[in-house]
Amino acid sequence: MTVLTPHHDGSAMYVQGEGLLGERCTLRMRIPQSWGAATRVWVRNVQDAEPRYDEAQVLGITDGWVWWEAAILAVNPVALYRFVIEVAGEAGEGSSYWHLNNAGLHDRDTSDYNDFRVTTARDAPEWSRDAVMYQVFPDRFARSAKAAQRPTPEWAVACDWQTPVHGSGPDVARQFYGGDLDGVTEKLDELAALGVDIVYLTPFFPGRSNHRYDASTFHSVDPLLGGDEALIRLVTAAHARGMKVMGDLTANHTGDAHEWFTRAQADPDSVEASYFYFNEDHSEYECWWGVKSLPKINWGSDALREAFVTGEDSVVAHWLKAPFNLDGWRIDVGNMTGRLGAVDMNREVAALIQARILELNPHALLLGEETSDAGADVDGFGWQGAMTYSNFTRPMWQWLADPSARVDFFGTPLPGPNRVNAEVVLATHRDLSSAFSWPVRNATMNALNTHDTARAVSVMIPGGPIVAAALSMLLPGIPVIFSGDEFGLEGDRGESSRTPMPWNEPARIVTDLRAAYASLTTLRHESPAVAEGGMRWLMADGDVLAFVRESPEESLLVIATRADMVGLDFDDLGLDLAGSQALNAAPAFAAGEFKVAQDLALAGPGAYVWRLPGVSIPPSS
Amino acid sequence: MTVLTPHHDGSAMYVQGEGLLGERCTLRMRIPQSWGAATRVWVRNVQDAEPRYDEAQVLGITDGWVWWEAAILAVNPVALYRFVIEVAGEAGEGSSYWHLNNAGLHDRDTSDYNDFRVTTARDAPEWSRDAVMYQVFPDRFARSAKAAQRPTPEWAVACDWQTPVHGSGPDVARQFYGGDLDGVTEKLDELAALGVDIVYLTPFFPGRSNHRYDASTFHSVDPLLGGDEALIRLVTAAHARGMKVMGDLTANHTGDAHEWFTRAQADPDSVEASYFYFNEDHSEYECWWGVKSLPKINWGSDALREAFVTGEDSVVAHWLKAPFNLDGWRIDVGNMTGRLGAVDMNREVAALIQARILELNPHALLLGEETSDAGADVDGFGWQGAMTYSNFTRPMWQWLADPSARVDFFGTPLPGPNRVNAEVVLATHRDLSSAFSWPVRNATMNALNTHDTARAVSVMIPGGPIVAAALSMLLPGIPVIFSGDEFGLEGDRGESSRTPMPWNEPARIVTDLRAAYASLTTLRHESPAVAEGGMRWLMADGDVLAFVRESPEESLLVIATRADMVGLDFDDLGLDLAGSQALNAAPAFAAGEFKVAQDLALAGPGAYVWRLPGVSIPPSS
Repeated sequence: MTVLTPHHDGSAMYVQGEGLLGERCTLRMRIPQSWGAATRVWVRNVQDAEPRYDEAQVLGITDGWVWWEAAILAVNPVALYRFVIEVAGEAGEGSSYWHLNNAGLHDRDTSDYNDFRVTTARDAPEWSRDAVMYQVFPDRFARSAKAAQRPTPEWAVACDWQTPVHGSGPDVARQFYGGDLDGVTEKLDELAALGVDIVYLTPFFPGRSNHRYDASTFHSVDPLLGGDEALIRLVTAAHARGMKVMGDLTANHTGDAHEWFTRAQADPDSVEASYFYFNEDHSEYECWWGVKSLPKINWGSDALREAFVTGEDSVVAHWLKAPFNLDGWRIDVGNMTGRLGAVDMNREVAALIQARILELNPHALLLGEETSDAGADVDGFGWQGAMTYSNFTRPMWQWLADPSARVDFFGTPLPGPNRVNAEVVLATHRDLSSAFSWPVRNATMNALNTHDTARAVSVMIPGGPIVAAALSMLLPGIPVIFSGDEFGLEGDRGESSRTPMPWNEPARIVTDLRAAYASLTTLRHESPAVAEGGMRWLMADGDVLAFVRESPEESLLVIATRADMVGLDFDDLGLDLAGSQALNAAPAFAAGEFKVAQDLALAGPGAYVWRLPGVSIPPSS
Repeated sequence: MTVLTPHHDGSAMYVQGEGLLGERCTLRMRIPQSWGAATRVWVRNVQDAEPRYDEAQVLGITDGWVWWEAAILAVNPVALYRFVIEVAGEAGEGSSYWHLNNAGLHDRDTSDYNDFRVTTARDAPEWSRDAVMYQVFPDRFARSAKAAQRPTPEWAVACDWQTPVHGSGPDVARQFYGGDLDGVTEKLDELAALGVDIVYLTPFFPGRSNHRYDASTFHSVDPLLGGDEALIRLVTAAHARGMKVMGDLTANHTGDAHEWFTRAQADPDSVEASYFYFNEDHSEYECWWGVKSLPKINWGSDALREAFVTGEDSVVAHWLKAPFNLDGWRIDVGNMTGRLGAVDMNREVAALIQARILELNPHALLLGEETSDAGADVDGFGWQGAMTYSNFTRPMWQWLADPSARVDFFGTPLPGPNRVNAEVVLATHRDLSSAFSWPVRNATMNALNTHDTARAVSVMIPGGPIVAAALSMLLPGIPVIFSGDEFGLEGDRGESSRTPMPWNEPARIVTDLRAAYASLTTLRHESPAVAEGGMRWLMADGDVLAFVRESPEESLLVIATRADMVGLDFDDLGLDLAGSQALNAAPAFAAGEFKVAQDLALAGPGAYVWRLPGVSIPPSS
């Protein structure tokens, strides 16, 4: 790839005035002088679906970059735009044009789908911008002293904390380890030490499984987790430490033991009957993926909408209000929610949930599970960001794949990820991110793995996971630590990855990555370039990915390599850092430890970071 | 580009059972043995937005191709699908995967946007599949004897048929040449000789301009065109020749002299006031692109919907019924229709119009103007195809550009098309076509130019337009001849291209291409491969584009070159035609005349066509 090309990324350095319908929005882009001179630049933006061209003016030149600026009118809630760059052609050849969109620079017309987007959607809350998320699967995280006193429920197979987890088979959802919410509360200092900002709990509602995605009510915390009071204690203790707590809500289905469903099934004339999709004689109902224990919710029902979202004590509202004070929701199966056959209410439902949440707490966060391509669904008007594996997790797994690994590859029939080069990683990342607005991209989860996937450790070459973790922290998006990642835990599929935490069993710690994670989260928290800065790719070449996060205050240069790397020159990255103090001023990070990079013979797998001067922007005209 | 790669294109050879919700749909793809062996193949399709993988089976091997077949369930109105192809990797490297979608073959994950699509939409009528469209701008096409007797309207500047057309300036919309519908009727035999199947008329409603996009009523034919009776005569005469006639309707706006608008403006309490967007004190109204003479229609008004679409004698219905019997509509500004700021009713309106049209005439055709990227809007549930310049016209102009041409480039501020190579043309064509289902792609207009654009002759190198015309006839889509193309007329912008036809002035004929067009339309009409066959690219390399249209009955090999070409071998195209009788059995077509290709030293610009044996499909399992 060409290193130095025209650049724009939607971050604050390049976009001003975003967010108000009918207002002007100022857009900047910059062209490296080494790339060539543009004769003219326009912003092409689509208004009521018709393209307009607003001519840009040169703002000034700094550090070898020519900055251009143009203003567009934000006519629609989503403004699609790209930059059209005219350059003089060969003699007698006329001029030629480049299109810069959110997928990169193109020598041809491109589809609007990959355009940049500014929207009038409410951005994710400010606290999410440099946040680090930690995912807790409550049954497996930690047991408080009270846990031992609770009886085993009838559906469960009681397990000691040391019992191996079954990845499949009849017990997979029944193995019951008895982790509880007070167990989480007791470990908050450990999470604080890691640098965690958001504790994301998979469902805390009672169910008949260890994963609790089959809620029997949405109005109480499972007594096996300590009940409502335990949640209040957890949120209170988290807030006291400046942490947020997010819940997990299935808006697509309930459990078949859910109080709504049992009433609905018993009485076709009940209001709850309208909450689901029954057939004419009430003998059958729609469900998630054909699983009868998970009846599908019918968002066409006004009564359901009230009970779930709009009502005073709706499910969505109940837990955001005192005394629970949750800080947001992750919506399970967000992609399927409101969709069934010819009916598609997905956007409508997502927007309804957002409106209700932000009415109660304008600083709450709403994320939607959209495991595959999230681009078409997540525009910020519903889910503010996605829990997806498409643009980060999958390409990371592929780049760092151990080719002999045989793991569940996101529910596909493929035997595992195939090893691909950095060029492919970058192309995939861009393709699957290009429909995101900048705020959505920043609020989208960068997970190495979750409770639903194999563990990165079981997928990647040795040393790979912490490189991917570094990238999760430094690329736009909310990095996710799934509990156990900090101990190097393994798992060849989601169910196998739900390992009880080895708090009291050092022998079960595979690799202690806590210090490494703490260093990464510190780097993230302390860098204005990561929290608010732009994102510019420098290199994608086989074993190497390099990019720079940029802000007026500082920039971070990141080089990730999956193999020992010799001979890379900063000139290769288009950066003239000779004699720069920055080169040795910041720590470099490699496979579990920080070290100062003296030169560019970098050991791999590793992720190396340099702190560089900030970007100099010409003063606005 | 690699010539021989796995192939699927949505045509009948590859898709069976399309179109019924809840039914199974059988999908086939084929892999050249020379490309390599697949170990497994799946169809990945998205159901309620969640991906599923259906494993394909080998159907058989014919002519060096391995055919695979899988079935998917058509759960949603639009099924997005791609093929995932597993191949064995290097030793110790595991397997690797290819994704085949509507943009091509990829070595990585791809966004759903470029997936193939099968839909439950009503396909465009069968008569459109091999049809050739001829566009008439009534004021400039032909005058019947009655025309001379009509008075010049007050808004008009009367012009003799020989008066040069003004491309800009105050008279641009006022120059009145007095062509009429009986003039069109009188020329139908000329059009029949060209091989025209569809006469598409720009608006025939009365207005205060020569283009008539500012209708003053939608319920009568402009008396200046001969009134209602003239339209009846035209359609009757066309139908007698087996031709269709399509009208042109502005669903986005009316003229400010429209009977609806004058009532609306005079009386804020009138029902018509709801048809438009007035401000609070009724002093201002929304209009097209800020042009006050074109007030924008408000599709939020139920009364407007009834008057325009759903009512018994609605605008849409009136002209499809007897005695007018129009065969369909082209909707002007289809992309902006129903869109204003935060309101977007576009899909809803388009679907409403389709439903009404097909209720009256299931064999009618509905096309929507979507001048730029039409992919996101045109899924077949509203407009059945697009009038767009994005996937065909623009890349053709660029490939065949005369770099010194200075013409209006589709309303952009660019001074004209830049010359690009065939690789860029193909990439653009694919990117801007990939969101079309196969039926939509086939019902989308392939225009070299229209009344709204410069003429290809003024854009392209000498000999270029007829090459582009050949491609318009042979690629999927409805080819469009804009009246005058057959005489090589010129024009540097839309208004300049609306030249009166040189029926009686041989001196104004620049190049007589009538025989060439007739040959092309014959080729189109006589080839089952063009009407019903698949579409496979063979080469895109600088000066050369080559593809093959394929059906079980026959195939057509098409090689287009913009320059003299020596040394191209059929082997380069992945075709083993040595000794094939087909090579010399069919005519080749070059710059205005047919000739038999004896070898592959082809003169350029030219388009060459060979008739080849059909595709052999293994019997279904």
